[in-house]
Amino acid sequence: MVIAAHPSRDGLRDVHPSRLPRPLLTTMYFAFTLHATDGQARAGTFYTPHGEIPTPAFAPVGTQATVKTLTPDELHDLGASLILANTYHLYLRPGVERIARLGGLHRFMAWQGPLLTDSGGFQVFSLAPLRRVDADGVTFRSHVDGSEHRFTPEVIIAAQEALGADIIMCLDECADPHDRAYNEVALARTHAWAERCRAAHRRRDQALFGIVQGGIFPELRAESARTLVSLDFPGYAIGGLSVGETKEEMLATLDATVPLLPADRPRYLMGVGGPRDLVECVARGIDLFDCVLPTRLARNGGLLTRTGRLNIRNARFADDPGPIVPGCTCYTCRRFSLAYLHHLFKAQEILGLRLATLHNLHVLLRLMEEMRAAILAGTFASFQASFLAECQPIGADLER
Amino acid sequence: MVIAAHPSRDGLRDVHPSRLPRPLLTTMYFAFTLHATDGQARAGTFYTPHGEIPTPAFAPVGTQATVKTLTPDELHDLGASLILANTYHLYLRPGVERIARLGGLHRFMAWQGPLLTDSGGFQVFSLAPLRRVDADGVTFRSHVDGSEHRFTPEVIIAAQEALGADIIMCLDECADPHDRAYNEVALARTHAWAERCRAAHRRRDQALFGIVQGGIFPELRAESARTLVSLDFPGYAIGGLSVGETKEEMLATLDATVPLLPADRPRYLMGVGGPRDLVECVARGIDLFDCVLPTRLARNGGLLTRTGRLNIRNARFADDPGPIVPGCTCYTCRRFSLAYLHHLFKAQEILGLRLATLHNLHVLLRLMEEMRAAILAGTFASFQASFLAECQPIGADLER
Repeated sequence: MVIAAHPSRDGLRDVHPSRLPRPLLTTMYFAFTLHATDGQARAGTFYTPHGEIPTPAFAPVGTQATVKTLTPDELHDLGASLILANTYHLYLRPGVERIARLGGLHRFMAWQGPLLTDSGGFQVFSLAPLRRVDADGVTFRSHVDGSEHRFTPEVIIAAQEALGADIIMCLDECADPHDRAYNEVALARTHAWAERCRAAHRRRDQALFGIVQGGIFPELRAESARTLVSLDFPGYAIGGLSVGETKEEMLATLDATVPLLPADRPRYLMGVGGPRDLVECVARGIDLFDCVLPTRLARNGGLLTRTGRLNIRNARFADDPGPIVPGCTCYTCRRFSLAYLHHLFKAQEILGLRLATLHNLHVLLRLMEEMRAAILAGTFASFQASFLAECQPIGADLER
Repeated sequence: MVIAAHPSRDGLRDVHPSRLPRPLLTTMYFAFTLHATDGQARAGTFYTPHGEIPTPAFAPVGTQATVKTLTPDELHDLGASLILANTYHLYLRPGVERIARLGGLHRFMAWQGPLLTDSGGFQVFSLAPLRRVDADGVTFRSHVDGSEHRFTPEVIIAAQEALGADIIMCLDECADPHDRAYNEVALARTHAWAERCRAAHRRRDQALFGIVQGGIFPELRAESARTLVSLDFPGYAIGGLSVGETKEEMLATLDATVPLLPADRPRYLMGVGGPRDLVECVARGIDLFDCVLPTRLARNGGLLTRTGRLNIRNARFADDPGPIVPGCTCYTCRRFSLAYLHHLFKAQEILGLRLATLHNLHVLLRLMEEMRAAILAGTFASFQASFLAECQPIGADLER
């Protein structure tokens, strides 16, 4: 079902988002157009000040203002339309004010396409030692040098405004998904912080997304969705998943949450990026994803194929003259053999990490394109069925 | 003084050597043409089965069949015309017969331009534990897994024929440059091994170079040059320098050696690559160089400039929005600030190693081009004087 078109930008479709010049004049910074739905799956375009994001989209993670091992030009050539960076890491090093003085995060990392920064909430609750939460915010020590810092909604919005990403996130508290009592307390704080983030946010060229929390508890998720929707954010994230719950719990939580989100706003599932998960979550109406999986897996020698993954360190590849995936059009598969990649990993050569990262991102970004095309063609259900019949799970230990 | 031209290849000058197709038919595999000399400095072209090498030339080092952090396409775009790989390392891992089965070293590492393999002599004498030399060869243990191996002239030629580089080297024994007694004994072995290498070598599409040894002793160097020249190699290397002797000793040794080498063969100084050294050795008639300096220095955060080097980890770069070298046309300087590079190194990001390597190789390869142009223009003496007045030494600790 075609819902809308966006005629003013149609002429720019053949220009990659990251290559579009910064507009001279913009009357509307953000727009989300849904081109088609197929079941719950949606194909759309999210327009941002740095270009458009065809959805469903997967954002490679550039934690420290670099997608590990790759240049921004390689990300552009891979067809990445959105990159994520971590406010927590950049706040600690090199510092958000420094990046602002240097012209903002886009200029700093030389990526001219759409950028998203997360709020640092997840990192504070997963990485930082000695954290103490109170109603007003969270105090923690840096994992880099042990120095003490404090994040409040206002601090985190100021930090993200200094960085200048196109999409920014509310500060949230991430709880153990199975701990109902903790989730109730954390959710109240997350909602209060979302309201304060919204009040503190000033830059009109940034879209501030709310983050639905509530663990695996449908009532809490529903309460969170209703509360955040009442605050009228331009987009909604679903957080607190892919953090230890089962696949069934994750998908059931989506089933209980997504229908409560407005159809005219993008829906972003944080931290999910296994190939099967991407397909199953697109089927449930998710538009945006980010995950370290393809890049971290690559650096560990795990290479994505259509049926799952292979471990390039395995001795069976030492003499294999073929590519990772026959017919794959990525630079790695066009130029190098499995035998050479095996050698690079055994010899601990950095080029191996690069070539593996290029391949894995290529596979995931092509998967997103295939899903979008299937939704536009109205064939998503059969695509989903054949993909899930073919592709093995990647392994839960590497999902985040 | 223009000595000769090479009319049959002139039409291919605008095609980069690594992009030339493998010839369908070749009646002459190698040729060395000297276009001009200026003082002792020479500008020439060395023609190989995989393309031409404009000289003087610097070969980036790809020890384990990869110039660390870079792809072959990046090396091509940098203008590299010759890459070196290490027989010692490839013999141990992944094995030379494996590379031969996979189509040879060019195909294995996807570099279609001229390749050089060294004989492993230097690595056995600098890296391998428990080595025992005798008249017939050298027995040693692998630095990778401790296994025992034996290199003889015949083994080393067979290994280099299996790899298939365009330029291959005789097995030599590397002695302490100041130890006269050891150099006399080692030199006798090196000469006997050179003769055996020459007798064992069969592939006509590979040029086998002899290696002049003899430490810092002019009489031994002269004896070595005369002995090897009598064996009529298509090119001559000077080994055993840049291994602990002073700059003055190195240059005096070149002065005592180079005039004894035939003018119509390329002269290759092994393991030298500091910017000042390159200029001073080109001035003494050297045509080819290799060195890990630019790439190793880069990975340690040392970035080459016209006046020496800077350490990107230095705090003074944390807020610097400018490039490493104003006006530098390398990818790194065109796209990224010193502040970003500083951040990448502080945050231990692999992209920093890549960008530093690209810049340093760009600087050295442009220096070689400038020297060639100056020789062709007859202005090398003034180029040399102004360069040496401007550029500081890089630091002997990093020269190899």
